[in-house]
Amino acid sequence: MKLEDYIENVPNFPIEGIQFKDITPLLRDKDAFHEACKRLADFGKRVGANVVIGPDARGFIIGCPVAYEMNVGFIPVRKPGKLPRKTVFEEYKLEYGTNKLCIHEDSLKPGDRVLIIDDLLATGGTVEATIHLCEKLGAKVVGIGFLIELLDLKGKDHIKDIEYLSLIKY
Amino acid sequence: MKLEDYIENVPNFPIEGIQFKDITPLLRDKDAFHEACKRLADFGKRVGANVVIGPDARGFIIGCPVAYEMNVGFIPVRKPGKLPRKTVFEEYKLEYGTNKLCIHEDSLKPGDRVLIIDDLLATGGTVEATIHLCEKLGAKVVGIGFLIELLDLKGKDHIKDIEYLSLIKY
Repeated sequence: MKLEDYIENVPNFPIEGIQFKDITPLLRDKDAFHEACKRLADFGKRVGANVVIGPDARGFIIGCPVAYEMNVGFIPVRKPGKLPRKTVFEEYKLEYGTNKLCIHEDSLKPGDRVLIIDDLLATGGTVEATIHLCEKLGAKVVGIGFLIELLDLKGKDHIKDIEYLSLIKY
Repeated sequence: MKLEDYIENVPNFPIEGIQFKDITPLLRDKDAFHEACKRLADFGKRVGANVVIGPDARGFIIGCPVAYEMNVGFIPVRKPGKLPRKTVFEEYKLEYGTNKLCIHEDSLKPGDRVLIIDDLLATGGTVEATIHLCEKLGAKVVGIGFLIELLDLKGKDHIKDIEYLSLIKY
């Protein structure tokens, strides 16, 4: 199965000049959705992760079934104001302005081995911030999985020596 | 397993007077997370759904593993500006102001049998709007599943005669 057949390119979304990669046709197809999650879960098992973390909101879509298939728990990383208890946060630069991501302070402990899952590796800002959040709580990121990687944007430079897998590359 | 042992009550979040039901301890526990998703997926199989729909963003967290376990596809329902292609939308009232939910116009077709999954049934506004979106596209909602139901808010009055399951009731 060629997973890229289920990704639709949408020109000029959300702003002029951006080629948006729409993953909804892949999610809609039971076989493509299942295969993508299964391959990322197999990767997560191989690197020995005991928990999955996904950033709000498309990281939930792939990360939660991956956690389910691996039979481990899931931790959401969210924008400010969404998580109800005490959080730690990480701020990072976007092309214009900044973004902030939060995680519950008690969600990870030293010794935890984290698999981070997101739909897209672009410039790498989100995943780098998520790695920092895990490190702040004393956990080790042992693997990172993406549905799609945009090679030109060199996001993998932000991952350093952590093992990662991207299923579709442009 | 008592799933309610994994829900934490957070007083006065997001605003004074609200008792927020925090599902993150349930997601974090592999057995509780697995059991909750499995029970909702068993319900979805029983009602014969061929696709799962979940509203942004906590509907993704439960809905996507339920779709994965059922071996069907997943369709996201999102706030305006998030879905890149042509959508239909539904507007509904909140206590103060209104909310709007969108679905891709080509995501459902007549004959589709939908399972709607969300974390919480409160006043029922979100699920009622999601039902309307499915009907606009000619599909039939055959079941609705929630992790939590707040009985006092009488959300189930908005579901009418559709079969539904809530795993934890307050």
